[in-house]
Amino acid sequence: MIIVMDPGAQKKQVDEVMSRLKQFGFGIHLSEGESRTVIGAIGDRTKALSLGLEALEGVEKVVPISKPYKLVCREFKQENNIIDLNGAKIGGEKIMVMAGPCAVESEEQMMETAEMVKAAGADVLRGGAFKPRTSPYAFQGMEEEGLKILAKAREKTGLSIVTEVVNPQSVPLVEQYADVLQVGARNMQNFHLLLELSKAKKPVLLKRGLSATIEEWLMAAEYIMSGGNYQVILCERGIRTFETQTRNTLDLSSIPIVKQLSHLPVIVDPSHGTGVRHLVPSMCKAAIAAGADGLMVEVHPNPEKAFCDGPQSLTLLQFKEIMEDLRRVAASVDRTL
Amino acid sequence: MIIVMDPGAQKKQVDEVMSRLKQFGFGIHLSEGESRTVIGAIGDRTKALSLGLEALEGVEKVVPISKPYKLVCREFKQENNIIDLNGAKIGGEKIMVMAGPCAVESEEQMMETAEMVKAAGADVLRGGAFKPRTSPYAFQGMEEEGLKILAKAREKTGLSIVTEVVNPQSVPLVEQYADVLQVGARNMQNFHLLLELSKAKKPVLLKRGLSATIEEWLMAAEYIMSGGNYQVILCERGIRTFETQTRNTLDLSSIPIVKQLSHLPVIVDPSHGTGVRHLVPSMCKAAIAAGADGLMVEVHPNPEKAFCDGPQSLTLLQFKEIMEDLRRVAASVDRTL
Amino acid sequence: MIIVMDPGAQKKQVDEVMSRLKQFGFGIHLSEGESRTVIGAIGDRTKALSLGLEALEGVEKVVPISKPYKLVCREFKQENNIIDLNGAKIGGEKIMVMAGPCAVESEEQMMETAEMVKAAGADVLRGGAFKPRTSPYAFQGMEEEGLKILAKAREKTGLSIVTEVVNPQSVPLVEQYADVLQVGARNMQNFHLLLELSKAKKPVLLKRGLSATIEEWLMAAEYIMSGGNYQVILCERGIRTFETQTRNTLDLSSIPIVKQLSHLPVIVDPSHGTGVRHLVPSMCKAAIAAGADGLMVEVHPNPEKAFCDGPQSLTLLQFKEIMEDLRRVAASVDRTL
Amino acid sequence: MIIVMDPGAQKKQVDEVMSRLKQFGFGIHLSEGESRTVIGAIGDRTKALSLGLEALEGVEKVVPISKPYKLVCREFKQENNIIDLNGAKIGGEKIMVMAGPCAVESEEQMMETAEMVKAAGADVLRGGAFKPRTSPYAFQGMEEEGLKILAKAREKTGLSIVTEVVNPQSVPLVEQYADVLQVGARNMQNFHLLLELSKAKKPVLLKRGLSATIEEWLMAAEYIMSGGNYQVILCERGIRTFETQTRNTLDLSSIPIVKQLSHLPVIVDPSHGTGVRHLVPSMCKAAIAAGADGLMVEVHPNPEKAFCDGPQSLTLLQFKEIMEDLRRVAASVDRTL
Repeated sequence: MIIVMDPGAQKKQVDEVMSRLKQFGFGIHLSEGESRTVIGAIGDRTKALSLGLEALEGVEKVVPISKPYKLVCREFKQENNIIDLNGAKIGGEKIMVMAGPCAVESEEQMMETAEMVKAAGADVLRGGAFKPRTSPYAFQGMEEEGLKILAKAREKTGLSIVTEVVNPQSVPLVEQYADVLQVGARNMQNFHLLLELSKAKKPVLLKRGLSATIEEWLMAAEYIMSGGNYQVILCERGIRTFETQTRNTLDLSSIPIVKQLSHLPVIVDPSHGTGVRHLVPSMCKAAIAAGADGLMVEVHPNPEKAFCDGPQSLTLLQFKEIMEDLRRVAASVDRTL
Repeated sequence: MIIVMDPGAQKKQVDEVMSRLKQFGFGIHLSEGESRTVIGAIGDRTKALSLGLEALEGVEKVVPISKPYKLVCREFKQENNIIDLNGAKIGGEKIMVMAGPCAVESEEQMMETAEMVKAAGADVLRGGAFKPRTSPYAFQGMEEEGLKILAKAREKTGLSIVTEVVNPQSVPLVEQYADVLQVGARNMQNFHLLLELSKAKKPVLLKRGLSATIEEWLMAAEYIMSGGNYQVILCERGIRTFETQTRNTLDLSSIPIVKQLSHLPVIVDPSHGTGVRHLVPSMCKAAIAAGADGLMVEVHPNPEKAFCDGPQSLTLLQFKEIMEDLRRVAASVDRTL
Repeated sequence: MIIVMDPGAQKKQVDEVMSRLKQFGFGIHLSEGESRTVIGAIGDRTKALSLGLEALEGVEKVVPISKPYKLVCREFKQENNIIDLNGAKIGGEKIMVMAGPCAVESEEQMMETAEMVKAAGADVLRGGAFKPRTSPYAFQGMEEEGLKILAKAREKTGLSIVTEVVNPQSVPLVEQYADVLQVGARNMQNFHLLLELSKAKKPVLLKRGLSATIEEWLMAAEYIMSGGNYQVILCERGIRTFETQTRNTLDLSSIPIVKQLSHLPVIVDPSHGTGVRHLVPSMCKAAIAAGADGLMVEVHPNPEKAFCDGPQSLTLLQFKEIMEDLRRVAASVDRTL
Repeated sequence: MIIVMDPGAQKKQVDEVMSRLKQFGFGIHLSEGESRTVIGAIGDRTKALSLGLEALEGVEKVVPISKPYKLVCREFKQENNIIDLNGAKIGGEKIMVMAGPCAVESEEQMMETAEMVKAAGADVLRGGAFKPRTSPYAFQGMEEEGLKILAKAREKTGLSIVTEVVNPQSVPLVEQYADVLQVGARNMQNFHLLLELSKAKKPVLLKRGLSATIEEWLMAAEYIMSGGNYQVILCERGIRTFETQTRNTLDLSSIPIVKQLSHLPVIVDPSHGTGVRHLVPSMCKAAIAAGADGLMVEVHPNPEKAFCDGPQSLTLLQFKEIMEDLRRVAASVDRTL
């Protein structure tokens, strides 16, 4: 941590900063430049941030040097954190494909979808039973009935199930049915939900928040790991920008960044990431080429009758076709699909 | 609602859109231009959005015309929604000032703060007992013990109490102690929390999300009102942009916009809105001049020892001084403080 | 400047950084922490940035400490830089009001506008003779003929004239007619234009770019000052964000920030800053309360017939009315108008 | 174009809108809903926007339906606009690779780079002779001397040359030496420069502005085409967002969007798009997989000694290595490199 003093800071103010640092056990390096004084503090960042140094008189800014997360760090675990999902591995050579509708709407819809995405090569079935919606008047999901339909689809096809949990209280219920517990973008910093998931026994798929920096995203993963659940899968799903042609701007550079900073696997959701069906195939290819460990794609037997997100859902036929293309791209970067 | 067809859309595709609209009871106006067909649909927007028209073949885009919120609308209630707080009125002529530390840290800290902000003219005491923190290793609040300290401070000073609730389950507990229940920016779209608050008997202070549009913010208010709690106070606290000199960019234009679209009172939090202490006084003045119904200001007896947000907190002396200045600005726009 | 090394940086890499720093005359402070090495370099930032340290092996990041601008700095000139405009002072007690249409359209339009804004108390007449337009098919301005009309209006009313210059080549022409040379937001980093203006004898009004940080804005001012023209007036006009209710998000916190970092006067353009007429009055008040040294407001005798920006222009009557309100707000912060 | 009236708009106001539309030759469709009136206007968007309808009383908003650009449109030219560059084709099956340093620094540097990037398979040599720099104190380029060095490198290697032009006046000079004239991100809306380039005989490489929407980017291309120069190559180079791990956020979804809306070729610059060397290889792969027609990559023999942008430049060895990888990805999407 570097403490930069104001150009006009007085000796008394510099001393106050240093005495506080010493009091909390920090090592100190003082550097008195011509125009200003800079203090280097050696010690734990977490503790450092709680010292309130920025609020002291004469301090211009405090620049953190070390990272605020620990367990999530590549330094904490050099090799990739590979997550086992009923025998399949997320974070290994194979790119995991999660496909299915935005929301569970009926048993027929889910069975048809499950069988066809399975046949096309998907590994995991997605479908929301609890739906966080911008409007209180919109369809909010089939809740437990939806979870039961998902479980039936798993039984029939062998696909694993990923579904969203939106409330700390529902974690035990969803954990009973799902193989992967999804945290939606709007809940990325719902810290009570993260703490509850930190005690869960199932892997957590953590979507990046709409306006979350990569550091905040990794801090949210740290919440889950800090409680003992080390099975965290990150999911890039676009960030909010000024561009209006797409629902969000898919930030594919986050993939190599996350892989450098952290040992966690990262997948990409180009359906939410763009919000536009015709962009999904090229963004799937780009995600694989960029190094993603998996994809999450919205697929619906009748997108025009979907209860939500129809405009960004592929038809079953479209999904089958792009899977062929994706296999070739995966091979070109030494991955399988 | 306007449905814009692709330039090359076929008659069959246009018919499919119209038949679906008629099926759901919409009135239709067809407009066949030289280069493309546009369909106007007259009816309820909420229902319209669930028709999945954007996912139909040949549809380029769907442009909503009417607003997605109802109860929140200025059309629903022409006069301002004035909220009573132990006899004080939020949304009337008087500008309500809420002041206090980021977090409740001890009884001494709160009592000292409460008495001095009361003396300076504040109406409401703020202080967090449950703290949503980016890092799992940071101070998370004194919880119920903190609520008890707040209640004591109210007893002694007569100030009303506003404090954050971060979890649907804690709503009954917080409601027992607080006069106003605060929803933090990171929870603005925590829909389960909003639904729980829609059943509460106390006013809700709803902070704007970091990357929430004004429409999404009003939709979150609609959640609370749709369950029967009409006492919603909006709070602008800055949005996330590319600028790094401030923690957020305070969007003061949201004040007149909200006042035009809605009947709800709106206050401003320049402490979080800027994250920098020396910017707070001028942003308080600007907020009042722009028409805000209140202010929420972080004040701490020793900002440099604050458990959180010290750099943006005013000292008690600074707070006292700016209150004098604010009274003059308020008078210049025919308000009191 | 602080050079933060990678956690695994080798001694050889640290030595390479230090030897390069020494070679260019920098003082060095070495700080070897448990997990990483940090090097403090004392010397000129401008030179430091050209050393290419970030590209050296083992360097994680380079954190600048001192500011990249010099002449613009508050440290360079402690007192406010007050600019004289035909006897009026920008940056002093009086708030300067610049008003007029987006574009010069005809002599009648400008004369009518000039006389009425003068009567209402404006100090400067604005009007574009060269218009930078997003579309090549839109009205591009009356060019020199427009400048002549502006000069006539000055002659008749005594108002000073501010008008935009969009091209390095036109600087001498515009300087012949105008009292203040305006740089539009899209040209804030048109460095050849800035260099040409650095040799001009007239004050320059420098609008903040749509996505310019405050630091980049001040660097653009530094360009003008570095060539010898010290008469720079900054103009906040909103930045691009995700919000769609307004054309831009007016960043009023930039006013106190600029005033702390720099000695330059800063004015606000709420017409472009919001793009919506009914938001202009409250944003004018807020700008004054926040400490702005002036306002630039679009006013048109018939906004619905304006060649550009009609929706954000006030009528002459509306302008007259708000001037009364603004005088009261100005007085409440010890300014005149 | 759709004109949405206020809920409370009066008949007189609706009539005023319609009479103005009729006066300018527009076809009209009137739709009177329960809560508001909507008017559809059929005719030319360019003309429509200059009617000032948004400024009329009673008008809530004007929604454009048709696109504001014409020549750039896919509808204007169904097949891809393939640009010939000394016999090579941009926009065809082959992905064009442009490589070289940020700035021309010396003859030795350029010759070494040119020969090695040629050997690795690059088609075009990049290098700036005129450098737009944020700071007036930074290296501004070798100007004409730099252009001469570029021409020598072309002579020796047969590589085509792309270099930036920053000023309308310098277009003839740069055109004399370069094969492709580059417009930098900061100049994307320097309309005088665009108009000058619209008369040039050489292809123009148009970088997307830092905060430009895709529509604005295409409008800038329309400027160049409207003057008669149809040889425009678009270049995505990242947009400004809140994320700080990268210099910009590379928006790869712009590739399939541009290819749908327009017939112009589009290439990607991942060096500026990320600003971080270790992200360049994965973003090159992703760009190709997403459908880009080319890449522009910064390569420098000694990045740590580069006059600018060293941290994002690849070494010659790194460039050679990634070219091998890129060939495989290109083949997987049926392209060559």
